[in-house]
Amino acid sequence: MAAVLRGSRNLWGRSLKHVDFTLVSSRSMASKTQVGFIGLGNMGKPMAKNLLKHGYPVIATDVFPESCKELQELGAQIVDNPAEVADQADRVVTMLPSNPSLSRLLTGYVPNGSLKVKKGSLLIDSSTIDPAVSKEMAVAAEKMGAVFMDAPVSGGVGAASSGKLTFMVGGVEEEFTAAQELLTCMGANVVYCGAVGTGQAAKICNNMLLAIGMIGTSETMNLGIRLGLDPKLLAKILNMSSGRCWSSDTYNPVPGVMEGVPSGNNYQGGFGTQLMAKDLGLAQTTATNTKTPVPLGSLAHQIYRMMCARGYASKDFSSVFQFLREDEENEGQ
Amino acid sequence: MAAVLRGSRNLWGRSLKHVDFTLVSSRSMASKTQVGFIGLGNMGKPMAKNLLKHGYPVIATDVFPESCKELQELGAQIVDNPAEVADQADRVVTMLPSNPSLSRLLTGYVPNGSLKVKKGSLLIDSSTIDPAVSKEMAVAAEKMGAVFMDAPVSGGVGAASSGKLTFMVGGVEEEFTAAQELLTCMGANVVYCGAVGTGQAAKICNNMLLAIGMIGTSETMNLGIRLGLDPKLLAKILNMSSGRCWSSDTYNPVPGVMEGVPSGNNYQGGFGTQLMAKDLGLAQTTATNTKTPVPLGSLAHQIYRMMCARGYASKDFSSVFQFLREDEENEGQ
Amino acid sequence: MAAVLRGSRNLWGRSLKHVDFTLVSSRSMASKTQVGFIGLGNMGKPMAKNLLKHGYPVIATDVFPESCKELQELGAQIVDNPAEVADQADRVVTMLPSNPSLSRLLTGYVPNGSLKVKKGSLLIDSSTIDPAVSKEMAVAAEKMGAVFMDAPVSGGVGAASSGKLTFMVGGVEEEFTAAQELLTCMGANVVYCGAVGTGQAAKICNNMLLAIGMIGTSETMNLGIRLGLDPKLLAKILNMSSGRCWSSDTYNPVPGVMEGVPSGNNYQGGFGTQLMAKDLGLAQTTATNTKTPVPLGSLAHQIYRMMCARGYASKDFSSVFQFLREDEENEGQ
Amino acid sequence: MAAVLRGSRNLWGRSLKHVDFTLVSSRSMASKTQVGFIGLGNMGKPMAKNLLKHGYPVIATDVFPESCKELQELGAQIVDNPAEVADQADRVVTMLPSNPSLSRLLTGYVPNGSLKVKKGSLLIDSSTIDPAVSKEMAVAAEKMGAVFMDAPVSGGVGAASSGKLTFMVGGVEEEFTAAQELLTCMGANVVYCGAVGTGQAAKICNNMLLAIGMIGTSETMNLGIRLGLDPKLLAKILNMSSGRCWSSDTYNPVPGVMEGVPSGNNYQGGFGTQLMAKDLGLAQTTATNTKTPVPLGSLAHQIYRMMCARGYASKDFSSVFQFLREDEENEGQ
Repeated sequence: MAAVLRGSRNLWGRSLKHVDFTLVSSRSMASKTQVGFIGLGNMGKPMAKNLLKHGYPVIATDVFPESCKELQELGAQIVDNPAEVADQADRVVTMLPSNPSLSRLLTGYVPNGSLKVKKGSLLIDSSTIDPAVSKEMAVAAEKMGAVFMDAPVSGGVGAASSGKLTFMVGGVEEEFTAAQELLTCMGANVVYCGAVGTGQAAKICNNMLLAIGMIGTSETMNLGIRLGLDPKLLAKILNMSSGRCWSSDTYNPVPGVMEGVPSGNNYQGGFGTQLMAKDLGLAQTTATNTKTPVPLGSLAHQIYRMMCARGYASKDFSSVFQFLREDEENEGQ
Repeated sequence: MAAVLRGSRNLWGRSLKHVDFTLVSSRSMASKTQVGFIGLGNMGKPMAKNLLKHGYPVIATDVFPESCKELQELGAQIVDNPAEVADQADRVVTMLPSNPSLSRLLTGYVPNGSLKVKKGSLLIDSSTIDPAVSKEMAVAAEKMGAVFMDAPVSGGVGAASSGKLTFMVGGVEEEFTAAQELLTCMGANVVYCGAVGTGQAAKICNNMLLAIGMIGTSETMNLGIRLGLDPKLLAKILNMSSGRCWSSDTYNPVPGVMEGVPSGNNYQGGFGTQLMAKDLGLAQTTATNTKTPVPLGSLAHQIYRMMCARGYASKDFSSVFQFLREDEENEGQ
Repeated sequence: MAAVLRGSRNLWGRSLKHVDFTLVSSRSMASKTQVGFIGLGNMGKPMAKNLLKHGYPVIATDVFPESCKELQELGAQIVDNPAEVADQADRVVTMLPSNPSLSRLLTGYVPNGSLKVKKGSLLIDSSTIDPAVSKEMAVAAEKMGAVFMDAPVSGGVGAASSGKLTFMVGGVEEEFTAAQELLTCMGANVVYCGAVGTGQAAKICNNMLLAIGMIGTSETMNLGIRLGLDPKLLAKILNMSSGRCWSSDTYNPVPGVMEGVPSGNNYQGGFGTQLMAKDLGLAQTTATNTKTPVPLGSLAHQIYRMMCARGYASKDFSSVFQFLREDEENEGQ
Repeated sequence: MAAVLRGSRNLWGRSLKHVDFTLVSSRSMASKTQVGFIGLGNMGKPMAKNLLKHGYPVIATDVFPESCKELQELGAQIVDNPAEVADQADRVVTMLPSNPSLSRLLTGYVPNGSLKVKKGSLLIDSSTIDPAVSKEMAVAAEKMGAVFMDAPVSGGVGAASSGKLTFMVGGVEEEFTAAQELLTCMGANVVYCGAVGTGQAAKICNNMLLAIGMIGTSETMNLGIRLGLDPKLLAKILNMSSGRCWSSDTYNPVPGVMEGVPSGNNYQGGFGTQLMAKDLGLAQTTATNTKTPVPLGSLAHQIYRMMCARGYASKDFSSVFQFLREDEENEGQ
C-alpha cells in the first residue's frame, strides 16, 4: 500500500526544498548496524523486539529499568539514558507517551544546551506529538548534521506485536528509503506523507475524524434504538447508505451488533478514552495554532474529556455509546 | 438488498402487536387498480411517472395545478384535492415537502374532524417527517379501517427519475408485501424497518450521521491542508484508515480530490444545505422528544442553520468545507 | 416593576391587530366571582391557595384526586375534570407540567371535537409550553368567543408559596388588566410581553440564557481552580468584570463560594436538571421551527440531557459544575 | 477595589512557598529610578506615557522604531533592543501582542542561552499569554535572582490612555507592593490573584465567560425577536431575571437596544473578534493542558474562529449577533 502511495506521489506535484545531504554520510544504511531505541512501553517494547527479530542489533533505554529486562534477555544492549543511545547508534527510534516526555528526551539529547547526536544520524520519532514540535526537533537535528523524521503509528499493541502497524512518515523525501528499511520491520504499511510534521498531521487528522465518527455513530444508534429500530438492522441500513463510516461498519459501539469488537466485551481492550482525549487535545492545539475552525472535533474533544472525568478513562473509546445512553436507574420522570 | 434484509429479519426477534386485518379486505392488491398520488413536486412527479410506466392507472393532485400537466398528458387522472384522491383510490402515495404540508394534507383527508379514506385503504407516505406524526397518522387511519405506512426515500431527483430510490418502510409487517408491490416500481431497494415510524427513524438517523460525517470530513481535510498535507494524499490515508466515511471516500467535499461530486462543480446540484438543515431539525425534534442526547448531531444542525443564514441555503451540503475555510481576503492579521 | 415596563411599552411602538372585544362581556372583571384552577401540583397548589387568600372563590381539579384535598379543606370547590371547571368559571388558570398535559387538558376542554368554554371566558395558562401551542390555543379560544393568554412564571415553589412569582404575559393588550387582577394575587411582578405566545417566548429565552450562563460559569470556575485560582477570589474578579452573570454573582455553582444556594447544600433544592433540560428542549424546538441558529443553547441542552442520563436529573441545575469536575477517584494517569 | 480584595485575601488561607528575597536588594523601590518598557503598540504606548506622567524616567524599545517617536519626544530614552533595556533598568514592564512575541522577547533577554537581566530586577509582563509560559519565565528569572510577575489587563485602548486599566497580578506576594507602585500609575484597579500565572488565569477565565455570555445573549435575543418579542423589552426582562449578564445589560449586541456600545455603531471599535478568538485559543490551550472540559468555551472559540474566516475579524466581538442573524437576502424558502 505504501508503494502505491509512493508511486503516485509525484502526480501531486509537491516539491521539496533543497537539503544538503552530504552531511548524511557516516550512516551505513544497507548493513545491519546497531539501531537505537528509546522508550520501551506497551508499544515500544514489541516494536524493538521486531527489530531484533529482523536481525538488527538494538541498543535501548527507558526511564523504568524493569521495562528493559525482557529486551535485554533477547539480546539488546541496555544503557542508562538517551544520550548514550545517541552516542552509539546512528539510527535511533523514539516511542514516548506524550509531549512532556519528548521534552525530557530532548533534555537527554541536549545536555548543556546543544543537541548531541552523531553527525549524519537518522532520528525517527514514532510518538504522537504536536507537528510543530516535530518541526522544531528537525531544525535542531539539522544544525547537528542529523535528520529527524516523524513516523507516528496507527494500530494498537496487537499490531505492534505482530509487526502490522501503519507508519505515517514526514520528513525529507531523500531519507524516506532509509527510514522505510527499519519501519517495514515493525509495520505492514509505511506511508510517506510529505515534509517533516506531516506524519503527525495525518495521524492527528485521522484520529480526529475517527472520534467524530464514533461519537456520531453512538448518538445515531442510540437515537434509532429509542425510535424503535433494531440496532442490527439500523447498522445494516447505515452501512449500505451515506451514513456509513468505519465506526458503524467495522467497530460498532453497540453491544451485540458486531463480534470481536470492544463493545462486545464491556469496552475492555481497544483504544482507551484517555488516549483518544490526548490525541484530540493535540488536534485542538494544532487547529488553534493554525487558526482552523474544527467545531465537531473540538466538541468531540470535550466529550472525551468529560468521559475521563466520569470514570471512562481506561475504557475503549467506543464506550461513548454507553456514556450517552440513559441508565435505567437514572431515568427521569 | 431488500430481500436480504427481509430474510434475516426474524433473527432479530422483533414481534408485532396483533392487528386486526379483517378490515383490510376491499383492496385488490394483486390487480392494477388505480393508485392515488398526492404531491407532484421535484420528487413526486418522477415517482408517479414510474407508476404509470409500470402500468398502474394513477389519480393525482397537487396544490400547484401546473405541476400536474405533464402527468395528465401521460394519462393520469388529475383531481382537485386530496379528499377526491382518497375517495377514489384504495392505495395512496403521498410525497410532500415537510410537516406543515402533511398537516395540510390531513386537513384535506379530514374534513369536519373525521378522517375520510376508504375502508381497507393503504396509505403510503414517502415524505420525510417526524415519526411521531407518522404514528398519529397511523392511529387515525386505523380508526377508519385503513393502514398507514411510512416509506421515506434516500436518493435524490436522479434516483427518483430512474426508479432507483431506496425506500425505508415502517408499518405493520403483514402489509409490507402490498406496499412493496408499488414501491419496487419506483425504487431499487425497499427495506422493511419495523413498526410504523421506523422508516422515518432510519432515514433521519442516516442523514444525521451523514451530516456529522460531512462536517467532520470538512474540518479534518481543512486542518490537514493547513498542516501541509496534500488533500488527495490525506483523503487516501483517511480512506484506508479508521477515519474513513462516506463523505471522505465517496463524496469528498474538497474541490479537486474526486471527480463527479458537487465539490468539483462549485457545490452545485446534490443535496441542498437547506434540506439537510430541515432533516437535522427533524432529528433534533425526535431526539428532544425521546430525551436522547445527540451532541454532535445537534451542533451539525446549528452549523447548517448558520450556513443557511450566510448564503449557503441552496448549495450542496458538502459546501461546509468552503464555509469553514478561511477566505484569503478575510484572512486576519 | 411591571408598571414600569407597561408605562414605557408604547415607546417601542408595538401595534396590536384589531380584536373584537364585544364578545368579552359576560365576565365580571371587578367582582370576586369564582376562578377556575386546573392543575394542583407543586406549583399550582400554592398558587391556587394565594387566590383563596385574596378572597377569590376557587373551583379546581387535578388528575390526582389526592392533590385536591388540601385546597378543598381551605374552601375550594373540587370537580372531576377540566370541562366542569370551564363550564362554571369564566376565568380559568391552568398550571400543567408539560406539553402532553396541555393536550390532555384540551381533550378535557374539547369533548367531541369542539372547544367548550364559556363565551367571554378568560383562559390564562401558566404552564411552560411551546409558544406555537399557545397560539393554536388562542385561535381555538377565539372561535368560541373566549380569550387565551399565556402567562408562564419564573421563580420556584418558594416564590409560588409566598406569592412572589414573576409572570410573563402574552395576549391581547386589552385583556392584560383583567389577567393582572388575578396574577398579582400570585406574583410580585406581572410583565406584559406582547401578542399571545410572547410570554412563553420570554420565559424560554431567559431560561436558555440562564443555562448557558450556568454551564459557562461552571466551566470557567473549574478552569480557574485548576489554574491555581482561589474560587472565591475568581468569583469576585468575574463579578466586577465583563464575565459577570447571574450564575456567577447570585447562584454560584461552586460549593463554598456563596451561602444560601444549592451548591452549598449538595445541589439539593433549587431548579432541577430535568426541568432545565425540558425548558431547553422547548427552546430547541422553537429555534428549529423559526430556523434560528442557537449553537450554545443547543449544546447546553445536550449537556443537561447527558446529565439526566448520568444520574443528575433531580439535582439542581448548578450541579453541572460537579458533572464537569474530574472526580479524584476517576483521575487518569 | 484592589485594597478590598487584598484585605480579605488571608481569609482564603492561601499559603506561599518560601522565596529567598535577599536576592532582591539592588532595586530602589521607593525612589523614581528608571523604568524599562518593552512593546509600544496601541496599548503599550499610552501605558508608558502614564508612567512618564507620574514622574518615572522611562527607557523603552519596540521592534518598530516609528512606534517610539512620540515617547522619545516626551522624554523617554529609546534603545535598540530588550537586552539594553534589561541591562539598564531594574524594573521592566512588557506589553506584547502574543506568545510568539514573548518568545522573541526572551530571545532578546537570553542571548547565548542564559537569561541576562539585572540581579534583583522586577519583570512585569502585561501581555496576555499562556500562564504556563509565565511560570517558565518566572523560573528562568528566579535563576538570575530576578522576579517575574504576570499582570495582564482588562480594558482597552481608552482605559490605557486614561490610566483606568484593571491589572490582574500573579507572582510572589512579597513583591506585590513593588509592582503595585508602578501599576497604579497605569490602572484604576490592581488585583492580586495569587502565585505566578494566576493573573493570566483570571484574565483568560473572565474572557472565556465573557465570550460565552456574548454568544449566548446574541442567540437569545435573536430567538426572542423571531418569536415576536420587542428587543428592548426582552433585554429588560432578561436583565431583571436570571438570564442577566454583562453582555445583556452593559454591552447588548442588538443594534438599537443600548446607546454607546459597538452594536449601535455597526460593530466598529470595541474588542475585535480576532482578539477574542486569540484569547479563547489561550483558554482552550490551558484547558487542554489541565485536562479541563470546557464545552461551551470551546464552542465559543470555534464560533469566533468561523467568524474570522467569514470576514468579521476586525469587527467588535458583539457582531456575533449579526453573524447568527439570517440576512434577508439569504433567507431560504
